[in-house]
Amino acid sequence: MAETVGFIGLGIMGKPMAHNLLKAGYPLIVHNRSKAAVTELVEAGASAASSPAEVARRARIVITMLPDSPDVRSVALGENGVLAGAGPGSVLIDMSTIAPAVTREIATAASLKGVKTLDAPVSGSEQGAINATLAIMVGGDEDVFERCRPVLSALGRSVVRVGGVGMGHTVKLVNQIIGLATLEAVCEGLIVASKAGVDVSTLLEAIRGGAARSWMLENLSPLIAQRDFRPGFMVRLAQKDLRLALALAEELQVSVPSAALTNQLFRAVEASGQGSAGIQALAIALERLAGYQISREGSTSKS
Amino acid sequence: MAETVGFIGLGIMGKPMAHNLLKAGYPLIVHNRSKAAVTELVEAGASAASSPAEVARRARIVITMLPDSPDVRSVALGENGVLAGAGPGSVLIDMSTIAPAVTREIATAASLKGVKTLDAPVSGSEQGAINATLAIMVGGDEDVFERCRPVLSALGRSVVRVGGVGMGHTVKLVNQIIGLATLEAVCEGLIVASKAGVDVSTLLEAIRGGAARSWMLENLSPLIAQRDFRPGFMVRLAQKDLRLALALAEELQVSVPSAALTNQLFRAVEASGQGSAGIQALAIALERLAGYQISREGSTSKS
Repeated sequence: MAETVGFIGLGIMGKPMAHNLLKAGYPLIVHNRSKAAVTELVEAGASAASSPAEVARRARIVITMLPDSPDVRSVALGENGVLAGAGPGSVLIDMSTIAPAVTREIATAASLKGVKTLDAPVSGSEQGAINATLAIMVGGDEDVFERCRPVLSALGRSVVRVGGVGMGHTVKLVNQIIGLATLEAVCEGLIVASKAGVDVSTLLEAIRGGAARSWMLENLSPLIAQRDFRPGFMVRLAQKDLRLALALAEELQVSVPSAALTNQLFRAVEASGQGSAGIQALAIALERLAGYQISREGSTSKS
Repeated sequence: MAETVGFIGLGIMGKPMAHNLLKAGYPLIVHNRSKAAVTELVEAGASAASSPAEVARRARIVITMLPDSPDVRSVALGENGVLAGAGPGSVLIDMSTIAPAVTREIATAASLKGVKTLDAPVSGSEQGAINATLAIMVGGDEDVFERCRPVLSALGRSVVRVGGVGMGHTVKLVNQIIGLATLEAVCEGLIVASKAGVDVSTLLEAIRGGAARSWMLENLSPLIAQRDFRPGFMVRLAQKDLRLALALAEELQVSVPSAALTNQLFRAVEASGQGSAGIQALAIALERLAGYQISREGSTSKS
């Protein structure tokens, strides 16, 4: 019989992930600050718990999927937190994107109670969570990883152990440096092309076969040209991820100038009230700098 | 019978492209400053001309493939240049990557002699030239493009008209902004990952399925990890392309901060004597800033 799994954090990502665990046949205990998502999961077959501690008392594998480091820290270590309820041999899997240093702090506290930890952040946004096609980067001990691999495989297509505790989050932050700075490069190209009068779809047709090709170019350029800023992944979370990545780079004494620039531009977009827009709204920061707005067919319109 | 084609500039890119025209059955007139490549093409069936003017007297379609704007300007407009020999109805196709302003200057001079022009820069590097799989971005009149399309199709897999005269070079410079700034993003991620102790091939396995995916990540990361800096495309040409792209952005009054940063870092690599290395040597600039050298398995070695 499948092991009971606990799930804390039923947001844009967490809710469809919890549904996928039910579909895969895992008995599921859920907890969430807002109650609507809990009700939905209970109707689908899950059982509700009133606190993270209660989740941990009822499930030996507990997953957290929360916005930022302080949230995970408080759900894991706080009063009525996961470690207050977890017994020896339990596993706490954090799938949020948080600072590796907080991950290590939680791992240390957990080990004092005989609780194992994995950090298993994901890439692939809401669509990947719904379709169970996430890329999952796992840090932790090999045996704990093997024990939890079936659970993770119900959530993603690519489940790769990248090293010990904290390395999952390290790799996720590297992923964000590369991906988000690539998006910034795409936005720069689009604004030059548009102001020079190049049609965006013609541009894509001409260059997508070459060395400038990227996921960001193919997937987000059309949205930018159509001014469709609905979120697949939000500006405020991208800004937070780059802030964590910059802190990691500082800790490692490595300079990452494009990541720093991209973080500043995301911050500008967030400060202008568009923190809940999709990351393709990064283009707005460059448009403001140029006093020019990108259009689908290329033009000379002022923003 | 196939139209006679002239080809000026038999370098790393031009030589295999000229061979592909011969293979496609075009009678070929060639000219090049250094004679070894001319001899090779003549042995393969081409005929040698002693000047660009003579090429233009003997062929009604003349292709130039040269390093930079001044080279193309002098071959087109100089004494014994293409326009000195070309008659009305001829076409001059420049496949180099040069400043759109120089392209327009040459087009104006050509039109006074009844000579048509296309700008048709390429992406795909030496391997694409050899295999005739280049992406070719063409600017110029529709009818001239249609007349020359069979010739261009012998050289590349994707031949797309992107607009009027100069627009081919505009799109190529946009391609370079996006592609080279994407490479910079990849280098930042690799140095953080390596110093944090992440194995580069594990990193690639974990993230290549996600939103950080790009041609640069997939093709150049392994070379950087192996410290293989042999050129597919040279640092000094990338630096030149970004310089032209920055001039275009200035002309358009658009800010492109990552492209500017990437140009500065390429300039640092070139200044240190590695202008003939492949563009993946961009990583060296970030390594110098950090006083740390990327290694395949991740480590803490000092550079």
